[in-house]
Parts: sequence; structure tokens; C-alpha cells
Amino acid sequence: MSRPVIDFWFDFASTYSYPATARIGALANAAGVSVRFRPFLLGPIFKAQGWDNSPFNIYEAKGRYMWRDLERLCAGYGLAFRKPAAFPQAGLLAARVALVGLKDGWGESFISQVFRAQFAEGRLINDPAVIRDLLSGLPCNPRQVFDQAQSDEIKSLLRAETEEAQRLVVFGAPSFVTADGELFWGNDRLEAALTWACKTKGI
Amino acid sequence: MSRPVIDFWFDFASTYSYPATARIGALANAAGVSVRFRPFLLGPIFKAQGWDNSPFNIYEAKGRYMWRDLERLCAGYGLAFRKPAAFPQAGLLAARVALVGLKDGWGESFISQVFRAQFAEGRLINDPAVIRDLLSGLPCNPRQVFDQAQSDEIKSLLRAETEEAQRLVVFGAPSFVTADGELFWGNDRLEAALTWACKTKGI
Repeated sequence: MSRPVIDFWFDFASTYSYPATARIGALANAAGVSVRFRPFLLGPIFKAQGWDNSPFNIYEAKGRYMWRDLERLCAGYGLAFRKPAAFPQAGLLAARVALVGLKDGWGESFISQVFRAQFAEGRLINDPAVIRDLLSGLPCNPRQVFDQAQSDEIKSLLRAETEEAQRLVVFGAPSFVTADGELFWGNDRLEAALTWACKTKGI
Repeated sequence: MSRPVIDFWFDFASTYSYPATARIGALANAAGVSVRFRPFLLGPIFKAQGWDNSPFNIYEAKGRYMWRDLERLCAGYGLAFRKPAAFPQAGLLAARVALVGLKDGWGESFISQVFRAQFAEGRLINDPAVIRDLLSGLPCNPRQVFDQAQSDEIKSLLRAETEEAQRLVVFGAPSFVTADGELFWGNDRLEAALTWACKTKGI
């Protein structure tokens, strides 16, 4: 029987996508589930809900709580955490580079490193120099990757992925979607998504 | 050493307060934590955030997801669930009656029954006849309870509790607040709140 699959939808500006990214590999492995990393942009989805900023900035009490919650969660998971100076950070460049990397086999490492740079090291991931620095440790040619990331093919792919997320009624990140179309939202639903994927893999 | 305490802030209109209420007794007991039930009104807090309705009604995708998530959660917990015909339902009367009951010793039973009536049986909890029916199985005089619930003392108490929730920067329900002021939001943070309360009880 083939392994069940879940789609892991994330946006690089999403805070809870950091612990989800750090946890999903080991948990999915243990559950025998394959994960497809699906970077997308929340911006257009938030705009359609009437937001031109992160709801964590629009709703101050919720935002303050989120940072504290994230700090506690990361401590519990044993993950380094440092609140970044800027939030949210534009994830467009990182998302395009991630799509190149997912085609070329180093995407998942890159994605983990971007989240760590942003939420553990306080680096600015919309700075091309930071992205270039992260790429320098990966099996790729950074200059070629930047060219590919700005190609029409990759730009169109990211747009198509964002539209696909909207079609699936993804409204936040991280989100997990099982093969039978069940949507789970939030780092705290990762385990439930994996359990669901295993339960229904015969369908 | 005295038992650690957490405050359990809930609003009868809050969907995730239903599984939290159903779960908190056994989990707190197992953890050796005492729970203070603190009914309050989210309405004034939502108004201050610019909402005149539940965010689950304002943001359609989030609302649709919430109902599905709640259904899955209840199935996992072995809790009956039925989506009520009306949402949100005004919890004012139930909250006032709950405050009477919490003084008189039958409050926690009443609170559980109100949530079950609303989210497992599809009953309308803003209907005084429904509240009277729930009271009929409890050790109280329903007529006297209704009189007390409409007294200035209880009305003031509910207002004061709502103001206290705002002071604690509670922005949603259910919320759990530990003795050292740590805020945990959501049914899915109940276990973390209990763990925190135990860890810091010596402080």
C-alpha cells in the first residue's frame, strides 16, 4: 500500500509555520506519512478577508499573546526563538527560491533555514543577501537559483500555488491538507492531520 | 503545599468552550489543579476589537473551518456534537444564572449542561424556558435563581468579571490564566495551562 500524503501549506511570514516546519519531518516519518511542502502567499488571501496587514498586528492583544505563546511553544519543543525586529516580513523572494529548491532537492533544508534565520536568529529574510547566505551552504549555484527564482515559470508557479490554496479554502498558515481534502489549520493540528492521513489512506 | 489554581474564563457563546468545559474537570483532577470557573461576556471585548459579531461569522472560511474542526475534536473526545441552528447565541442569562450557581454549589453542573444543550442538543440557551428546564434537575429553586440572576448584585458581578477579563487581556474564549498571570487561549492550550500551573505552583 502506498504511503499516505499530506500537503503542508505555509507562508514564510507565518510565525507558527516555524515550529511546524521544525517538527513535521520527524513526526511524519514516525507516522509513515509523506509530506509535500507547498509554499504560498497569505497576502492575497488576507486581502480578500479585508486585511492589509497580519491579524497579529491588527489585533494587538492577539498579537501580544501570539508572541508569548510562540516563545512558550518553542521552549517546549527545544527550538531556539527570538522575536524578529520586523513582522511580518515579505516572504516573496524566499517562497520563489523555495520552489526552485523543491524542484532541485534542497528545498526542505532551505525552508527550515529560512524559518530559523527569521525566528531564531532575528535575520531579515526579505534581504537578498540573507537568502544568498543561506543558499551558500546548500548544493546549488546561488546566482543561477536567483535567476530561476525570478523566471516567469517560477513566478507563475507561486501564483498558481496561491490560487490552489485559495481553492482549498486555506485561510491561514500553516495548514495541512490530506489526500481526501480534509483541512487542518495551525501548528497545533499537525498531529491530528497526520493521524487523519493514516486513518484514511485506504480510501 | 496548597494546590495550584487556574482561572477558566469562558463565554457561553464560545464554541471551543464546550469541549474545554467537558474536559477540564478530569484533566485538572489528574494534574492536581483547582479550577475556578469564570463566566464572562466576550461581546464587549469583541466590540473593542471592532467586531459586532463572532469572527467566525465575519470571516466565512474561518467559520466553516471552525465547525468542521469542532466536529472532529468532539468525535475524538467522545463528545456528542450538533451544530446549533443559531450562532452565536446570547449567553447573558446563562452567565448570570451560572454566577448564582457558582455561589450555591451547582454552578459547574449547570455550566456543563448549558454547553451540552447548545452544542450537543441544538437547544437555544437564550430561551428562559430552556434555562429553567436545565435548572429543574439541579438542587435549587429555579424561580429564586431567576430572581437572583436579575439582581443588581449578580448583574454587577458579571460586569466586574468581564472587566477583569479585559484587564487580564483575555481576547477570546476559552482562556486559562494561571496564578502567576500566564494566559493560555483555546481548548487546545488546556493541557499546557495545567502543566504551567503545576510547574510554577511553588512561586
